[in-house]
Amino acid sequence: MKTVYNVVLASASPRRKEILGRMGIPFEILVSNAEEPANDDHLPPAEYVSLLAKTKARAVYAHAGASYTGRPTVWIGADTVVVYEDEILGKPKDEEDAFSMLYKLSGSGTTGENVETKHSVYTGVAVLVSDERGELLSEERFSVCTDVYFGPMSAQEIRDYIATGEPMDKAGSYGLQGIGGTYIRRIDGDYNNVVGLPLFELYRFLKKKGIWE
Amino acid sequence: MKTVYNVVLASASPRRKEILGRMGIPFEILVSNAEEPANDDHLPPAEYVSLLAKTKARAVYAHAGASYTGRPTVWIGADTVVVYEDEILGKPKDEEDAFSMLYKLSGSGTTGENVETKHSVYTGVAVLVSDERGELLSEERFSVCTDVYFGPMSAQEIRDYIATGEPMDKAGSYGLQGIGGTYIRRIDGDYNNVVGLPLFELYRFLKKKGIWE
Repeated sequence: MKTVYNVVLASASPRRKEILGRMGIPFEILVSNAEEPANDDHLPPAEYVSLLAKTKARAVYAHAGASYTGRPTVWIGADTVVVYEDEILGKPKDEEDAFSMLYKLSGSGTTGENVETKHSVYTGVAVLVSDERGELLSEERFSVCTDVYFGPMSAQEIRDYIATGEPMDKAGSYGLQGIGGTYIRRIDGDYNNVVGLPLFELYRFLKKKGIWE
Repeated sequence: MKTVYNVVLASASPRRKEILGRMGIPFEILVSNAEEPANDDHLPPAEYVSLLAKTKARAVYAHAGASYTGRPTVWIGADTVVVYEDEILGKPKDEEDAFSMLYKLSGSGTTGENVETKHSVYTGVAVLVSDERGELLSEERFSVCTDVYFGPMSAQEIRDYIATGEPMDKAGSYGLQGIGGTYIRRIDGDYNNVVGLPLFELYRFLKKKGIWE
């Protein structure tokens, strides 16, 4: 696929980089230091997470927009949150926090052959487009939800999993694509959305915007 | 996790190796040249694919079992098939075959915002256990099914995807974990099962067998 646009991904996540890379278009990564707004207005997760995504994309555009001229530029921000019983879980603060999240997500100590505990993963995406003079043309955002069902985990399994280090930089304290997959019975929705970027919807969104030649 | 068993994976698939590796136990890979039996008896996919898995595990055990002594050994065979409207799809024979599979799986040219086309992915697993003298103790098998829903693909998108080379070594001619994910709206079931090994069920199966210390 070819594009006449610059594409900028406003995320430091190596997982988002890898997923966007599968579209086969060249892109750059620019990271903002934008403060993530707290959800003081108690927005629904789908709305809140796309607001986080917008904050990231805007911060990078504000910083670098003026130097991206000559052709139009697409600025992509994304953020992911885990929602369990109306509580929004981000990345764990420390190992204790990771334990507390994994304990909840895996059913709070319930056991049994067919037990599964559901939570939802929301990834919000914001897409800004600036023109060849660097001026903002449009700003849109959307979010995608995938339901994830954990099987039971013992306290020892949670501790062993935390000891691998994998949970510490991930929303909800697990990686579906990694060791975390050992404890996830099933998902219902877009797999890549759980990892950090809703590849299916984003590809369609960019195609509709005419990003490809 | 520690184990007093040797663990042998009877599969050449780098994806299965990667998934089994997440369990954190040491294992070896031995590959058989066993002829895959055709489904002449028209077994249901769940049954057929676990038969394929058994064939692989048995062939490797038959070849190497006598030299795995001193402690018990677990022999794991696995195979994956894609089932679309009662037709079992394996790996594509050539690019034309890959086109034909992807055309079917993506809805045979139907288009539309919310169109999705379902197929099922079955991975069968066979687990043989031999004792410290190399003699067969047990042989069990199971299979796991995950439903996969493609969005529409244009003929050009199918051709572009085949040109990446990704489809050619994969059952059903796509990789959910790769570029193929661009066209998969959602899945319902175990993600790793689609990639080639039902990590969730296999971990539980091995744990129940007492493979961990």
